[in-house]
Amino acid sequence: MKSFYPKLVTSLLSIIILPLYAASWEALPHLPPIPADNPQTEAKILLGKTLYFDPRLSSTGTISCNSCHNLMAGGDDNRPNSVGVAGKQGNRSAPSVWNSAFLSVQFWDGRANSLEEQAKGPVTNPVEMGIPNWEAVIKRLAAIPGYETLFKAAFGDNQPLTTDNTVKAIAAYERTLITPNSPYDRYVKGDKTALTEQQVKGMNTFAELGCTGCHAGPNFSGPSLSMGEGFFMKFPTFAGSQYETQYNLTKDEGRYSVTQKEADKNLWRVPTLRNIALTAPYFHNGAVVTLEEAVRVMAKTQLNQELTDEQLQDIVAFLKALTGDFPEQSLPRLPSTPGKQIISP
Amino acid sequence: MKSFYPKLVTSLLSIIILPLYAASWEALPHLPPIPADNPQTEAKILLGKTLYFDPRLSSTGTISCNSCHNLMAGGDDNRPNSVGVAGKQGNRSAPSVWNSAFLSVQFWDGRANSLEEQAKGPVTNPVEMGIPNWEAVIKRLAAIPGYETLFKAAFGDNQPLTTDNTVKAIAAYERTLITPNSPYDRYVKGDKTALTEQQVKGMNTFAELGCTGCHAGPNFSGPSLSMGEGFFMKFPTFAGSQYETQYNLTKDEGRYSVTQKEADKNLWRVPTLRNIALTAPYFHNGAVVTLEEAVRVMAKTQLNQELTDEQLQDIVAFLKALTGDFPEQSLPRLPSTPGKQIISP
Repeated sequence: MKSFYPKLVTSLLSIIILPLYAASWEALPHLPPIPADNPQTEAKILLGKTLYFDPRLSSTGTISCNSCHNLMAGGDDNRPNSVGVAGKQGNRSAPSVWNSAFLSVQFWDGRANSLEEQAKGPVTNPVEMGIPNWEAVIKRLAAIPGYETLFKAAFGDNQPLTTDNTVKAIAAYERTLITPNSPYDRYVKGDKTALTEQQVKGMNTFAELGCTGCHAGPNFSGPSLSMGEGFFMKFPTFAGSQYETQYNLTKDEGRYSVTQKEADKNLWRVPTLRNIALTAPYFHNGAVVTLEEAVRVMAKTQLNQELTDEQLQDIVAFLKALTGDFPEQSLPRLPSTPGKQIISP
Repeated sequence: MKSFYPKLVTSLLSIIILPLYAASWEALPHLPPIPADNPQTEAKILLGKTLYFDPRLSSTGTISCNSCHNLMAGGDDNRPNSVGVAGKQGNRSAPSVWNSAFLSVQFWDGRANSLEEQAKGPVTNPVEMGIPNWEAVIKRLAAIPGYETLFKAAFGDNQPLTTDNTVKAIAAYERTLITPNSPYDRYVKGDKTALTEQQVKGMNTFAELGCTGCHAGPNFSGPSLSMGEGFFMKFPTFAGSQYETQYNLTKDEGRYSVTQKEADKNLWRVPTLRNIALTAPYFHNGAVVTLEEAVRVMAKTQLNQELTDEQLQDIVAFLKALTGDFPEQSLPRLPSTPGKQIISP
């Protein structure tokens, strides 16, 4: 089956369907969902930002959240997989932190129900930040006098330095990392000059082909679900293409590694397409180097479509219009341990 | 010989000598020397800052200048030695980048005559940023479209992307990294409340003992010499103390490794003491964990003095008054390579 519909029918359909699709295009909200038990406060966000940039959250004092989720490089590290402490490497590609607050589950396999829960992972992962356990993390933070002040300002005077408060602060900061005002957003809000003609064509092709079946909603990551409820898809959905072996797509079994359920084999959380032009290489294993090839692989493996070169270029042009404004970030001053080294590498 | 002079004589001397010393205390200038062939411009500083934070200046795309010279952690990494690409480690401790513009030679062994020359080193050092050579660095920068714009803005339209311009830009940014207004500076400028009583006592003890013999001038790194002219001292000057073996002080032969001259064995560029409270661990090999012990070791090995606990605490209190204001740094946006991964790890 070369395509779901013959070309002519597709073209006709597009005329009919387009207005419907157009109605469902949504701009990115300026604020993500905020959990009731972790309201945003300035003090908490400052603490979270400080923690986010502090490499002392790693065993060797060399890796911060920002090392792999590099804010000013698109929120990731542009590598197939990240480098943690002592040059160790994992096997999945770091997702961008930007707009992650709009995802209802975190990690490629959706194993964390919130940004708070996500933040607990890398710090104690032996190939990422490598601190043995959270008790040791808290002990280290307690050895840095300035953190006491920051934690008290954020969480009050009653023993505020806890694991839960640490990850709450990081999550609160991450909820400020939103990239609004992409050309796409401006277009959807009414500025018809915000997209080029090719990008508008690509936007329509994107919808016609069915990309929006998964990459729906304002974050292009599926329907807006409750926090903790994931939107997963099988990748590849259409098995047997040459890409499967070429890019080793099925080796990592995705959500199955969390649930051990047969039905979850090679299921992945649908990732956002926002800022996708900045986050090469692509897919869970970062095996695909260019956006062109990533779109080609997706069309084949998820929709069983072979794109024409024109369709491909149009979609890529459209995807580049999903790059938003990156709010300026001032570097937080890292609290010091005056006259003392606290990490024994 | 326990001390140069009996205690009483030292005390008497201090009364006579103190006013002379006091006259030589100098506040940190707000601007460092600027070389005639590399004037400061906004465009150049922005380019330099972008390069400073860009991990693509390392082979693996994981190490930027800021990884080891972490601005908001005191300008260094608080480790005995730094971690470069693939977890590799060197054998010297990263000096702070703050106020390095006041040093007349760079690196612990003074082997670079300028910040420009210094910036050429780490990028192609196999245990630091690990790019094979500068040709490869320039090729990589040329693959990032946004850098063309930044280089043209800084250096004009005529093939601006060169090694020399790259290091000029980084040096220009580093010349903005000055920490004025420390309590010491405010005291010297007339605010007599800026130092505590203990810090004033420590300041006097610091001068009386002769620490200012080497740690002189506004940067506490020796007399203001012409760029390229280094101020070196033997460390240890007084051989044979227990510290020599305890902290392995002579294994690295310092300037001798550059010149191969016998007279340069264990000679080191006198480091600044500015922000010293933030840059533990101490010395070229980062072998000493606390500032207290570093002062004890210095007094013994350089002045052949055993400090009383009071002297030690006073000096340490004074040194903590050398921590200045860190001008806020906004993170530069790293130019992207839209839809493409350019580093093959």
